[in-house]
Amino acid sequence: MRIESEITDKTHLSVHFAEHEPLRLDSGLDLAPWTIAYQTYGTLNSDKSNAILICHALTGDQYVASVNPVTGREGWWPLMVGPNKPIDTSKYFVICANVLGGCMGTTGPASVDPRTGQPYGLGMPVVTIRDMVKAQARLIDHLGIDQLFSVIGGSMGGMQALQWAVSYPERVFSCIPIAAAAKHSSQNIAFHEVGRQAIMADPDWCHGRYYESNVQPIKGLSVARMAAHITYMSDEALQRKFGRKLQNRLAPTFSFDADFQIESYLRYQGSSFVERFDANSYLYVTRAMDYFDLAADFDHSLARAFQGTKTRFCLVSFSSDWLFPPSDSRAIVHALNAAGASVSYVEIETDKGHDAFLLDVPEQNITTMGFLNAAARARGLV
Amino acid sequence: MRIESEITDKTHLSVHFAEHEPLRLDSGLDLAPWTIAYQTYGTLNSDKSNAILICHALTGDQYVASVNPVTGREGWWPLMVGPNKPIDTSKYFVICANVLGGCMGTTGPASVDPRTGQPYGLGMPVVTIRDMVKAQARLIDHLGIDQLFSVIGGSMGGMQALQWAVSYPERVFSCIPIAAAAKHSSQNIAFHEVGRQAIMADPDWCHGRYYESNVQPIKGLSVARMAAHITYMSDEALQRKFGRKLQNRLAPTFSFDADFQIESYLRYQGSSFVERFDANSYLYVTRAMDYFDLAADFDHSLARAFQGTKTRFCLVSFSSDWLFPPSDSRAIVHALNAAGASVSYVEIETDKGHDAFLLDVPEQNITTMGFLNAAARARGLV
Repeated sequence: MRIESEITDKTHLSVHFAEHEPLRLDSGLDLAPWTIAYQTYGTLNSDKSNAILICHALTGDQYVASVNPVTGREGWWPLMVGPNKPIDTSKYFVICANVLGGCMGTTGPASVDPRTGQPYGLGMPVVTIRDMVKAQARLIDHLGIDQLFSVIGGSMGGMQALQWAVSYPERVFSCIPIAAAAKHSSQNIAFHEVGRQAIMADPDWCHGRYYESNVQPIKGLSVARMAAHITYMSDEALQRKFGRKLQNRLAPTFSFDADFQIESYLRYQGSSFVERFDANSYLYVTRAMDYFDLAADFDHSLARAFQGTKTRFCLVSFSSDWLFPPSDSRAIVHALNAAGASVSYVEIETDKGHDAFLLDVPEQNITTMGFLNAAARARGLV
Repeated sequence: MRIESEITDKTHLSVHFAEHEPLRLDSGLDLAPWTIAYQTYGTLNSDKSNAILICHALTGDQYVASVNPVTGREGWWPLMVGPNKPIDTSKYFVICANVLGGCMGTTGPASVDPRTGQPYGLGMPVVTIRDMVKAQARLIDHLGIDQLFSVIGGSMGGMQALQWAVSYPERVFSCIPIAAAAKHSSQNIAFHEVGRQAIMADPDWCHGRYYESNVQPIKGLSVARMAAHITYMSDEALQRKFGRKLQNRLAPTFSFDADFQIESYLRYQGSSFVERFDANSYLYVTRAMDYFDLAADFDHSLARAFQGTKTRFCLVSFSSDWLFPPSDSRAIVHALNAAGASVSYVEIETDKGHDAFLLDVPEQNITTMGFLNAAARARGLV
C-alpha cells in the first residue's frame, strides 16, 4: 500500500512505497521501502495530458519554482518555470522530484536503512540515472499520468530526460535535454572522482557513517564543490567576472588569504554548499552520472537507443560549456536524425559555460517556449 | 661568504648564501640565509657564452637530465636535454635549479627557519616568480656567467623565462617560453585555490607545522594533485587514452571503487606525487604562479615590459592546452611584436594538452633545435 504524506518530517511532499513495493535497481538489488519527494506546480487537466516533468541536476532539488524550505531561497529555475514563463504553470502541470540518492526527502544515503535502523551511509545501494528515472516513473504512475507532455532537464536533468525517452518512449510526448550528454566523458568522471576523493579524505566522513558521529565532512565536501564549480563556468566568464581582481584590498598580502576575488567566491561556494547538501548524496549522485552511458545497452549505437521513437526532441547546448560541450549534444542530434526522430537543436552562443542553463539566457527561454507551444498544438492542448 | 657544498645532506649540488647575503623578496622581506640547489650538464666554454638555464615547472626539479636521487627516476625532460638532443649538452652548458619555495634543496617551507631552529612551515615568506628568478640570477653570478645563451622553460618554467627576459634583458641572449602565459588567469588561480584548500583541509597539515608532528597531509596533497592533473591533459587525450574503459573488470561494481581506468590513473597520480613533494611547497609555488602578472609593473602594458629588448624569443604553445592556451602565447607574441622584438612562434597541433611540453612531441624538439642553432650562429657559438 502507498502511504502519501502531504508533508513529511522535512516538509517535503512525498510518496512512500512499502516493503512489498520495491524498486528493482540496475545493480540487481531491491530498494524497499523507499520514498520519492516531489513538488508540483499548476493544475493537471482532466485528461492528464498537460504534465511536464522537470528533472534536476546534480545538486538540485524538487523546489524548481517555489521556496526551498531548507535554504529559504527561491526556486532554482525562476526564469524558466512559473505563470507565463517558458514552462508556463498556468498551462501545464509541472512535477519535479528529488532524485534517488538525493537528500531532500527521496531515499538516499542519509535515509534510514530498515535492516539496521541507522542511516544507510554506504550501505545504500549505488543507483544509476535509469534507477532515478524508474523511481520517477513510479511517481508518475501514482499520479495517474500515462504520458508526460514533456520531460525537461539541464545537465544531469538532461541525462534523465534522455533516459526517460529511451526507457519509456510511449510516455514522453516531448523531451528537452539541455546542456546534456548521452554519456559521461572521461574528463567528467575525473572531476567527479576528485570530488569524491576530497570527501573521503576528510576524517569527518567516517567511511560514510558520520551521521552517527554528529560530524560532517564539510571541509571535504566544500573542496569537492569548489572543484566542481570551476567546471560549471567558462574561462571567459571567469575572466570577465573576476579576472585577477583583488578582494577588498589594494595589493596582494603575500599570504594564503583569499587575495583574489575568484578565491573568495569559490570559498563561499564551498562553504554555502555544505549547509544544504549531504556529502554521501554527493558520492551517490556523481556516481550515477559517471555510470550513465545511454547507448551501452544498444551495442553502443545511440541511434538504436532511439529507434522508432515518436517523441519530439529539442536539444539545447551552450557554446562555452566545456563540461557538456555542444559536441555532446550534436552527437545526440545525429543519433536522433539517424533514428528518424523529430528533433530541433539550438546551440546558444554565450560565455556563461555549463551553468548557462540556470542563468538569464533569453535564447533558452525563447527556444523552450517556442518548442513547447508547437508541441502543445500537436498534442491538442491549445 | 659563500659556502658551496658539492653534496648537501640530500645529495643536491647547491650554493649557500649566508646571513649577510640576503635575498630581498617582492614582499619586502629578506630571506637569509638561503640556499639554491641546482644541477649542471655539459661544459661551460672559456668565454662562458654557452650557458642555458632551464627553468622547471610547478612540481619539477633540477634533475632535468639525470636521475633524481629522491625518486630514482630519469630526468624529467629526456627527449629535450642531453647529448645530441635539441638542448644539446655536448654543445651547451645546461643549468637547472630548484625553485625558491621548492623542496629539492633550495630554501623552501621545509627548510629550517634560523629564528626558531624549526622548519619554516608558513613562517617562510611568500615568494614570487620574480623572486625565483632573482635567486637564479644570484646562482648565475656565482657561476661567473654574465649572459645566458638561453633561458628555456615550460609552464611555470616559461613564466620564469619571461621574467628573466624582463628583469635581466642584457643577460638573456635568447628565450624559449613554452606553454606559458604572461599572467595567471582567473581559472588558473581557481584550480590552484582548490588544491591549496584540499591540503589545508587535511588535519595532518597541522596549519603547516606537520614536520614536527611526524605526519604529512598526504590525502589533501593527493587530492590537490588529482585536480591539477586533470588540467594538464586535454579532454580529447583523456577520451583517447581512457574513455569510459573499465579498470581490470568487465562490468561496473556499483560501488565507489576505481571502476574506470581514469579513476585508477588519477588515484595513482595522487598517491605517487605525495612521495616526492612537500605539501607546503605546493602552497608556496602555486601562490607564486597566482601572483605572476608580468605587465603589472608596466601599467599593464606587456609591450612596455619588453621595450628595447635585444633578446631573441621563440614561443611554443599547444593547440589542446586549456590551462595555458595558445591565446596566452599569442598575447605575448603580439606584445613582443609591438616592442619590436625578435620573435618566432609555433603553435603545435596536438591533443596532448598542457603536458605536451614534457611528452614526445617532435615539433617541439625540431622547433627548439632549429631556434637554438640559429641563435648559436648569431651568438658566434658555431
